[in-house]
Amino acid sequence: MQIGMIGLGKMGYNLALNLANNGHSVYGFDQSNEARISAKESGIHIVESIDRMLTSMPSPRVVWVMVPAGKSSELVIDELFQKMKADDIVIDGGNANYKDSVRRAAQADEKKMHFLDVGTSGGISGANEGACLMIGGKREIFERVDPIFKSVSIQDGYLYAGESGSGHFLKMVHNGIEYGFMQAIGEGFQVLKQSQYHFDLAKVATVWNNGSVIRSWLLELMESAFKKDARLENIRGMVASSGEAKWTVETALDLEVPVPVIALSLMMRNRSLEEDSFSAKVVAALRNEFGGHSVIRK
Amino acid sequence: MQIGMIGLGKMGYNLALNLANNGHSVYGFDQSNEARISAKESGIHIVESIDRMLTSMPSPRVVWVMVPAGKSSELVIDELFQKMKADDIVIDGGNANYKDSVRRAAQADEKKMHFLDVGTSGGISGANEGACLMIGGKREIFERVDPIFKSVSIQDGYLYAGESGSGHFLKMVHNGIEYGFMQAIGEGFQVLKQSQYHFDLAKVATVWNNGSVIRSWLLELMESAFKKDARLENIRGMVASSGEAKWTVETALDLEVPVPVIALSLMMRNRSLEEDSFSAKVVAALRNEFGGHSVIRK
Repeated sequence: MQIGMIGLGKMGYNLALNLANNGHSVYGFDQSNEARISAKESGIHIVESIDRMLTSMPSPRVVWVMVPAGKSSELVIDELFQKMKADDIVIDGGNANYKDSVRRAAQADEKKMHFLDVGTSGGISGANEGACLMIGGKREIFERVDPIFKSVSIQDGYLYAGESGSGHFLKMVHNGIEYGFMQAIGEGFQVLKQSQYHFDLAKVATVWNNGSVIRSWLLELMESAFKKDARLENIRGMVASSGEAKWTVETALDLEVPVPVIALSLMMRNRSLEEDSFSAKVVAALRNEFGGHSVIRK
Repeated sequence: MQIGMIGLGKMGYNLALNLANNGHSVYGFDQSNEARISAKESGIHIVESIDRMLTSMPSPRVVWVMVPAGKSSELVIDELFQKMKADDIVIDGGNANYKDSVRRAAQADEKKMHFLDVGTSGGISGANEGACLMIGGKREIFERVDPIFKSVSIQDGYLYAGESGSGHFLKMVHNGIEYGFMQAIGEGFQVLKQSQYHFDLAKVATVWNNGSVIRSWLLELMESAFKKDARLENIRGMVASSGEAKWTVETALDLEVPVPVIALSLMMRNRSLEEDSFSAKVVAALRNEFGGHSVIRK
């Protein structure tokens, strides 16, 4: 098939490459000169603008947007919705909030265009060698571009999830679970590190990845990380978060589903970003007031 | 090697079978007649008592204890420590508390015997096809029985973890992480089930197991569970716990390591066992007292 890829960052570039290697005719655009130049020798037809991309492709056109969710993707999708025509298809492969995807699908409907929301997992290696895709939107539109999804995903690694928003909803919850896995792994290894024993954490990760109940890709990544830096001395314990776990918690609150582990995994990341904690100051001050317990003064 | 296996339940029987299939001479004992009878045709030399096991084997003897941790294993190990001699080796493969294993190793030392604490993971299929073993105790004793561990574990699936107690310590933390993984998976699927979408949960588990960041053995087990019962209508949401996550939390409290996710995973299991919640009654009563909010009367 012919397909346009907007956004040639780590994910978009590797997906575009993967598509081109699978025999698709791929038009690639990135607003950064550098990204366009470094993609030149890759078999992707690099174009200088979105307009050029759209005039290069036969109708109905299929454009995959792989730019950071939020302002960047809003601008790109707005432009596509202005410039594309009836029956054209826009695929949003970023980590958009599913509510935005429901809104985008409705806008596309008004213009008789089509919109698919695609949650993408598996990281850069996945984009390159076979991603995991969760796809929401009209089934007949999904079926029309099925060959594209089949090409870039690992075997059994893509799913038509249901109506608009369901692809990004699934990705959102996937990331919520991911936060829980990561925090549980973090807590466990901290207990090991601070214990009376002198565990070789890389070897622990290795043995756990061979036959244990918690064997998993994330634990394989930890095996690799501990092999590079046995006690993670070169990493500060500060962890940012993108929006998906927060949205999972917000959605769970709306649905009145208790998700304490996902919520605390997110809040422990938030705590990790604080140099000092005001709530801890408050508790220290109170303890000093009622019990005369000493506080650590600045 | 020659080895005795005490406890021919699901784990012990499969480990004994695995050892016998790997050319070891295995003496098996279980206090239950039934377990002994059903193991008869398996290539394991079934004996009628621990005494018979000990007289059947040449010195120094190696006995692997695979009975439920707690009273059962205490009784068996007490008996072995009374009846075995200097240089004999006792292996405790159950989920004992690592502090008990430290105590047992000290007792063995007094008698010039040896004790290895072995955390075993991978479930029944692991015991049968290749387990994951975490081994604590004196290194030279580990090395003496290395062929046994090598035979029953999956490739790269056993680790000499360090001094006495370290094997069961590792298994304890492994299970703490496992509780976190399981609760995160549970929360995620409940959000999916109660959402506005009609997700096929088995297909979701399948796609997540193919290329996503959270691919893992536990998610493969969920794939299998959802294929049997798409909405788990035949399972009540009540979850017991054995001791390891509790010990992980207790150990973390001693070490002052924050483990909110592991702690809450355990407490959510405890909550699941309550038909009604007294703390929720208290909160409902308070809400009624100050705000006149209605309570649900019995």
